[in-house]
Amino acid sequence: MATVPSVSYSITVRLEVPAGGKAVSQLTHAVENAGGVVTALDVTNAGHEKLRIDVTCAAKDTEHAQAIVDALDAVEGVVLHKVSDRTFLMHLGGKIEMQSKVPLRTRDELSMAYTPGVARVSLAIARNPEDARRLTIKRNSVAVVTDGSAVLGLGNIGPSAALPVMEGKAALFKRFAGIDAWPICLDTQDVDTIVEIVRAIAPGFGGINLEDISAPRCFEVERRLRELLDIPVFHDDQHGTAICVLAALTNALRVVGKSLPDVRITLAGAGAAGTAVLRLLLAAGARNVIVCDYLGAVHLGRDDLDVSLRWIAENTNTEGYGGDLRGAIKGADVFIGVSAPGILTGDDIATMAESAVVFALANPEPEVSPDDAREHAAVVATGRSDYPNQINNVLAFPGVFRGLLDAQSRTVTEAMLLAAANALAKVVSVEELGPNYIIPSVFHPDVATTVAAAVRESAGGKARGFTEA
Amino acid sequence: MATVPSVSYSITVRLEVPAGGKAVSQLTHAVENAGGVVTALDVTNAGHEKLRIDVTCAAKDTEHAQAIVDALDAVEGVVLHKVSDRTFLMHLGGKIEMQSKVPLRTRDELSMAYTPGVARVSLAIARNPEDARRLTIKRNSVAVVTDGSAVLGLGNIGPSAALPVMEGKAALFKRFAGIDAWPICLDTQDVDTIVEIVRAIAPGFGGINLEDISAPRCFEVERRLRELLDIPVFHDDQHGTAICVLAALTNALRVVGKSLPDVRITLAGAGAAGTAVLRLLLAAGARNVIVCDYLGAVHLGRDDLDVSLRWIAENTNTEGYGGDLRGAIKGADVFIGVSAPGILTGDDIATMAESAVVFALANPEPEVSPDDAREHAAVVATGRSDYPNQINNVLAFPGVFRGLLDAQSRTVTEAMLLAAANALAKVVSVEELGPNYIIPSVFHPDVATTVAAAVRESAGGKARGFTEA
Repeated sequence: MATVPSVSYSITVRLEVPAGGKAVSQLTHAVENAGGVVTALDVTNAGHEKLRIDVTCAAKDTEHAQAIVDALDAVEGVVLHKVSDRTFLMHLGGKIEMQSKVPLRTRDELSMAYTPGVARVSLAIARNPEDARRLTIKRNSVAVVTDGSAVLGLGNIGPSAALPVMEGKAALFKRFAGIDAWPICLDTQDVDTIVEIVRAIAPGFGGINLEDISAPRCFEVERRLRELLDIPVFHDDQHGTAICVLAALTNALRVVGKSLPDVRITLAGAGAAGTAVLRLLLAAGARNVIVCDYLGAVHLGRDDLDVSLRWIAENTNTEGYGGDLRGAIKGADVFIGVSAPGILTGDDIATMAESAVVFALANPEPEVSPDDAREHAAVVATGRSDYPNQINNVLAFPGVFRGLLDAQSRTVTEAMLLAAANALAKVVSVEELGPNYIIPSVFHPDVATTVAAAVRESAGGKARGFTEA
Repeated sequence: MATVPSVSYSITVRLEVPAGGKAVSQLTHAVENAGGVVTALDVTNAGHEKLRIDVTCAAKDTEHAQAIVDALDAVEGVVLHKVSDRTFLMHLGGKIEMQSKVPLRTRDELSMAYTPGVARVSLAIARNPEDARRLTIKRNSVAVVTDGSAVLGLGNIGPSAALPVMEGKAALFKRFAGIDAWPICLDTQDVDTIVEIVRAIAPGFGGINLEDISAPRCFEVERRLRELLDIPVFHDDQHGTAICVLAALTNALRVVGKSLPDVRITLAGAGAAGTAVLRLLLAAGARNVIVCDYLGAVHLGRDDLDVSLRWIAENTNTEGYGGDLRGAIKGADVFIGVSAPGILTGDDIATMAESAVVFALANPEPEVSPDDAREHAAVVATGRSDYPNQINNVLAFPGVFRGLLDAQSRTVTEAMLLAAANALAKVVSVEELGPNYIIPSVFHPDVATTVAAAVRESAGGKARGFTEA
């Protein structure tokens, strides 16, 4: 998939080579000649006759990694030992753990954290259930819930295979917002069952992050849970994406000197992400949008409209354009793709209006080659980390939930999503803003706190720290 | 409830007193005169005219704590500020947290732990689902599941009020066996729904610990989940208690020189714990048991027998004794109570056989006063930490699950429970064994590892460390 060597395909190869020969320098040459990048070389055992060496290098993909191993094996005098995959090593035993925040060294400490002392805390919550938001993990916990039906770009791989992704998500929640998230991977894809399960497990959580649930089921799951629960329910694939796109578009339009109500936007993708992006763009003031799916523009004349597509048709494409995507982007100011790889060419982008903005967010392969798009558009963004302007949900969900939890919010509203997008856009200062910097890095230290403050304020909550209860 | 001051009713009182006076010594006297125990006294601010002092002291219960505060307030010159409750302070924001085990400092680390690198791990699990036990938290995770229907001795207080207890349980899992447990508090008490939920969330866990679910529903929940799932399901109130009782009884009978097949046992309590204790005693070789509930001895002639009581009647009380508990313990070698406070007196214990063994495990108030029982019985055990021989489930469940997870066991069998009980008994050496030491302390360093090794061996697994995957 990747076109350049990536650390996510990093391998460590343990070898033995004759001491004193040229084998060591031959090893690095072999890796480089095979197109790999040596990132570390450790001599782990040096004897009189032999050296044991661990060579770590980045490859493009699994086949490339094997080609590098073969190249190393072909170096004269080399004896190949174990080949380790750094990504798999990192996953051994899981990426997250549970930690106790209280000491349990003595009988006294046990008797406060567990019986008999805990009984008084339980009774206090039984008398006043709201105290659970103060005296339990509900203060700071989010369930990351999936049914494994639409995991990354991998599709319906099921709940067990989704678990490493949900663990990663939980780790990101902690890393960027100090939130205690736990993965809940459901062995069911029935909407009623998912709704009933999430409703039932809600007492232990302060928020629900739905993740990688396929459309259109995700819409109903979220809608029904929002009605049932008194904690916020947020489908990241929808709203996280929408917040990041609106923030990036806000800044991109500043760069090209256009305004959201005036621009013509073509949006490719009418699934979970596309629908949510559309809704938030409209809420922010966009008035001229055409949405395309794999059958072409969505319009009221189509006879395949389900509830969701009908809503799109009723709220976009006022002129009833009935052609394909290629036609729809002609003269458009903005193209936003949350759809499929390689559906447009640089020539298509050339037909857009002057100072065009192109967000090609399909991952890992964008809707149009970023290099080609940059020849014709003023601002280009992708979901990839190897180009400028990476639009990444990590910019939104940690701060959004931090704000919701701190406000002890019972809901997520469109106003909060708009506030989050606006805050995220403003992390990029006027001085920094430019065609290659419309959205901050995920490591920008202000992102989560700024988004959290905006969401908290919108939710009517007071400022709180991560750990204050 | 408690008869002596306990740290679980510990309060910290912030006061201001005039500098240079006798107020400080008067404070400690005031606490002691009110029956409290001063555990700490910190001067937090010393000025020319005033001292600010934090007095921490243990009380018997909430009313007693208030009486101590009143006594402090009555000391001349004292200005009372905030009164904090140490147990409540410990619970602020919850007792557990989620931690990432992997660093997320750089883009490279993100790309291995999350997209795009994680996709390869997910695909590996999609191809071979068993890899989830190696590459995810399933390797080391246990869901602590409750419906809040029978929490401690507090009864049906519901899932939110149960959460502090489940958090404490999770903390104990980590403290004593390095296990990553997470509380799942269910807002339903319907057996079918509980079974469906636990079945559905099982992909993310290596074991299920059912907790504080009332009888008889707990029997059906456990039985059905064991049929449905390929991970072990263990109801701690049943089997944890049974393992500890069998271990303690094994050692108590060594002390008095009797053997399990020969002794006559009277068991008070036919709920979750009582039924499980009975089953394990029978599996271990006990042959002469009478079980009593609040209606008296369970026998085939009673017309109120449900499935569970009928099983008891069919497997105990072969002579068909139909009297009450008081009659049933006459001449008995062993009394085991997992029932209700104060249902027996010292005089009742006096009617038992020579060298009687009494386990009065109702908590916090035992079936018979331990002091009275000790006048007539050779060995007395309770569930309390302020008497010798505390029978505490913390002795069993951490090691049991450690062994199950390390063996990647798909079930829990009676053989494993017996192995756990036997191992737990043997932690007390022949030299140490005596009437006041039939069961080790929960802080004994060998308990969890010894129990884990026995369970792992019984489950056919190899030795593994906590973190090895």
